[in-house]
Amino acid sequence: MAQTVDARQKVLAANEAAAQELRGSFAAAGTLVVNLISSPGSGKTTLLEASTRALRARYRLGCIEGDIATERDADRLRALGIPAHQILTGGACHLDARQVRGALEQALFPGLDILFIENVGNLICPTSYDLGEDFKVVLLSVTEGDDKPFKYPAIFARAAVSVITKSDLLPYTSFDLEAVRQQVATLNPDGAFLVTSARSGAGIDTWCRLLEARLAAKRGGRA
Amino acid sequence: MAQTVDARQKVLAANEAAAQELRGSFAAAGTLVVNLISSPGSGKTTLLEASTRALRARYRLGCIEGDIATERDADRLRALGIPAHQILTGGACHLDARQVRGALEQALFPGLDILFIENVGNLICPTSYDLGEDFKVVLLSVTEGDDKPFKYPAIFARAAVSVITKSDLLPYTSFDLEAVRQQVATLNPDGAFLVTSARSGAGIDTWCRLLEARLAAKRGGRA
Repeated sequence: MAQTVDARQKVLAANEAAAQELRGSFAAAGTLVVNLISSPGSGKTTLLEASTRALRARYRLGCIEGDIATERDADRLRALGIPAHQILTGGACHLDARQVRGALEQALFPGLDILFIENVGNLICPTSYDLGEDFKVVLLSVTEGDDKPFKYPAIFARAAVSVITKSDLLPYTSFDLEAVRQQVATLNPDGAFLVTSARSGAGIDTWCRLLEARLAAKRGGRA
Repeated sequence: MAQTVDARQKVLAANEAAAQELRGSFAAAGTLVVNLISSPGSGKTTLLEASTRALRARYRLGCIEGDIATERDADRLRALGIPAHQILTGGACHLDARQVRGALEQALFPGLDILFIENVGNLICPTSYDLGEDFKVVLLSVTEGDDKPFKYPAIFARAAVSVITKSDLLPYTSFDLEAVRQQVATLNPDGAFLVTSARSGAGIDTWCRLLEARLAAKRGGRA
């Protein structure tokens, strides 16, 4: 197994180098980059659809989608008029920084204000891979159960923003929102915690204002 | 990357050898072994709780739980009076056959009729790892969205049984059950397809009868 561990360390070191290069380019371009991570079906693409509708008139948005198979998610964003590039990972359970660099070379995105990177649906593998993003966002839908921050602590500790999704389904579940809020606060005292429903629209404004504030802070920091 | 691929091939070959050993022991013991795979929060533990309540009077049941962190799932099954052993993978996104062998050495399960192995919550990594099971079961909750068999085809093609969960929430979602049924049938023409709700009890009898039939077939085949 030592050989496997060594190989993994090499892969992570190579990823880190590529991520730092990307971070430099994004800083020079003044593009805010958000890496979205969750289980399959927590609502990453649906949150991006809602964000796009709310922000596309004022900001240049773009999206990189990571999936095992199909262009479905990219197609959903393209249908809303924003450029989207689909990365098919061929079975891998996360995106890496070199794939993101490759996507940016192919996608010919115009100078973007915000680039969303929707990672492969997975609460584990994407946690370790820096994609040059400004911050990670973890999504958790209320139908997945309130035990997830306990069972997958690493991503909740690392993500700057935790977004609870599908809050419209709260009445039909036994999800203990306060228990989740407290556990996330314990794991990640400086993180933001938002409760949203793309269906009802609850919390979407707060999420969009957070993105705008982070973009302004990044550009303020650069000026 | 060639080195990484070689390392992965070695890991998979070692796993396969351990899995075949396990399969031999399970055949000798006449134990039916079921490997449950899904996204986090699809309801694997909840299905096992319902199965335990329905079957514990007539069968000796046991459970191996795979998680990144916490003994929560094993505790839920122990509370129902069946032996459960928790494997903590230390970050890995799937169980492997050597972990299962180690668990069986420690757990001192009595001669079991059915051993459930609840894999780490993940639709990708567990697909490639044989645990010596009789068959894999993939779960998909209706709140995860009907695109999952398209986006994660490998596990739906390999699992002998696809179990739709949380069907009580169908009225509150846009989940297209027939589209999912058709896609799973395309990927896996011989697979069983069940629609269940642990909350309402729908489909739980059918699931338990399937387990009983597979157990009887395994023992009939051995006689």
